[in-house]
Amino acid sequence: MNNKPTLHTSISPALLHLYDLSNSVVVVIDVFRATSTIAAALYNGAKCVIPVDSVPKAIEISKNISGIAAGERDGMIAEGLQHGNSPLEYNRTFIENQTLVLTTTNGTRLLQMALDKNADTIISGSFPNLSAVCDYLMAENKNVVLGCAGWKDRFNLEDTLFAGAVIHTIQKHFTIHCDSSLMAETLYSKYKNKLIEFAPKMTHYHRLVERFGLIEDIQYCLTPDIANVLPVYSDGKLIVRK
Amino acid sequence: MNNKPTLHTSISPALLHLYDLSNSVVVVIDVFRATSTIAAALYNGAKCVIPVDSVPKAIEISKNISGIAAGERDGMIAEGLQHGNSPLEYNRTFIENQTLVLTTTNGTRLLQMALDKNADTIISGSFPNLSAVCDYLMAENKNVVLGCAGWKDRFNLEDTLFAGAVIHTIQKHFTIHCDSSLMAETLYSKYKNKLIEFAPKMTHYHRLVERFGLIEDIQYCLTPDIANVLPVYSDGKLIVRK
Repeated sequence: MNNKPTLHTSISPALLHLYDLSNSVVVVIDVFRATSTIAAALYNGAKCVIPVDSVPKAIEISKNISGIAAGERDGMIAEGLQHGNSPLEYNRTFIENQTLVLTTTNGTRLLQMALDKNADTIISGSFPNLSAVCDYLMAENKNVVLGCAGWKDRFNLEDTLFAGAVIHTIQKHFTIHCDSSLMAETLYSKYKNKLIEFAPKMTHYHRLVERFGLIEDIQYCLTPDIANVLPVYSDGKLIVRK
Repeated sequence: MNNKPTLHTSISPALLHLYDLSNSVVVVIDVFRATSTIAAALYNGAKCVIPVDSVPKAIEISKNISGIAAGERDGMIAEGLQHGNSPLEYNRTFIENQTLVLTTTNGTRLLQMALDKNADTIISGSFPNLSAVCDYLMAENKNVVLGCAGWKDRFNLEDTLFAGAVIHTIQKHFTIHCDSSLMAETLYSKYKNKLIEFAPKMTHYHRLVERFGLIEDIQYCLTPDIANVLPVYSDGKLIVRK
C-alpha cells in the first residue's frame, strides 16, 4: 500500500506481547510520573538515569557509583529511600552531573518488559518532552510501538493521552491500522487544550492529589516541552541523545 | 461516599482478571459479531443459544439435541460447519424454536473466562439489544463489569463504543472510578450519531468488509435495539429473560 513504517499503541503492559518490538522503536510512557521525572532529571543536567526494578537494587547500585537512589511504590517515596518520583525534586542544583538510580511501580517495569522482548530501541516519553519524542520518531522512520505503563496493568487516561499527542503530531508519517491508536488520538484531540482541567477525571489524579497533595507534579507532568530532551536507553542507562 | 454500585470496563479479555466478577453482572460484548448474532437469534425466536469453545463440541452438542451448529474462526464460517456468525443468517423462518450451538473467535471465549472467574451473572450485549441491557443493569442495581471481547486480546473500537453507549445511558446510577469507562463514554459521545459512517476506521471493518463483503452485517451490528432482547446465561445456555 505504501512504505511508511507502522505505528501501534499498547494501552497496558499486559498487552505489550501482542506487538512486534524487535523491529520497533518502543516509547515507554508513564506520565504520572516516571517518564516525566526522567525527562526532568536529564533536562536539568543529570549524567544519566539508571532504571531498576527494586529498592534494594537502587540502593546497591547508587552506593557503588555514588548516585542518587530514588523511587516510589504506590505513589509514595519507597521505604528505605530518601528521594521519590517527583519531577520537581530534580532541579538543576540538586541533580546536575549526578546519576539518578530510579525504581517505580509501573514505568521502570514496562521498560524492563520492552528490554526482555528485544525492542530495537527504547526511548522515554511524556508531555515534558513531547516534541523531542515526535522529532526523533519522524527522523528515524522506523516502526513505532507506543507503550503505556498504565497502573498495575489497568488502562489509564494520562498515558493514552500522551500516546494520542504523539499520534496527533506524527500520524501522516506512519501507516496506522490500530484501533488503540485511533482511540488515543480521538481522546487527545478532544482534550488537548484542557489537559490540566481534565486531570481531575483521572483515577491517578485522585491517588496523587487527594492522598499526597501533588497538584504541582500533575501540572508539570502535563506541560508539553517543559523538559524537552530525548532519553534513549543504552547499556542499562537512559541518556540524552544529542 | 454513596451507595451506588460500581461500574468498570475491561477493554480486553487479557485485562478481565483485574476486576472482581464474583459480585458483578458481567456484560459480554462482541459487537462484530457474536453478541449481535446471539441477540438476533433469540429475538427471532431461537429457544436458546449454547456457546461453546470448539467446532467439534458445537457439532457434537448440536447432534445430540438436534440443534444448529454454527461458528466462525478468523471471520469466516468455521471449517466443518454450514452456518457462521452472521446475525442475518438467523431470521425467524430459519431459527424459530431451534437451538443454536455457537462457537466464535472472541465472544464465546470471553464468556467462558467470565464463567471461570465465577461471575455473579453473565448477560450478552451489543447495539441490537442496547436498551434491554441498560434497563436490566439499572433494575438489578448490582456492580457491573462491561467485558469487551476485542480481537485476539487487542483493544477494538466497536466493543468499546458499545460499552460507552451503556455508560452514557446508565452512568447516573453507578459509581464510576474507571479510566477505561470514561474513555469509552467519551468515544461514544463523539461518534454516537455517526456509528456507521465511523465504522470504516475500525480494523475489524476491513477484516469483515474488504475480505468478506459483510457490509450489511456491520450495519445490523451497529443498529441500536433492532433485536432488543436480554440474553442471560444459565446452565450452559443463553436464554431470553422475560
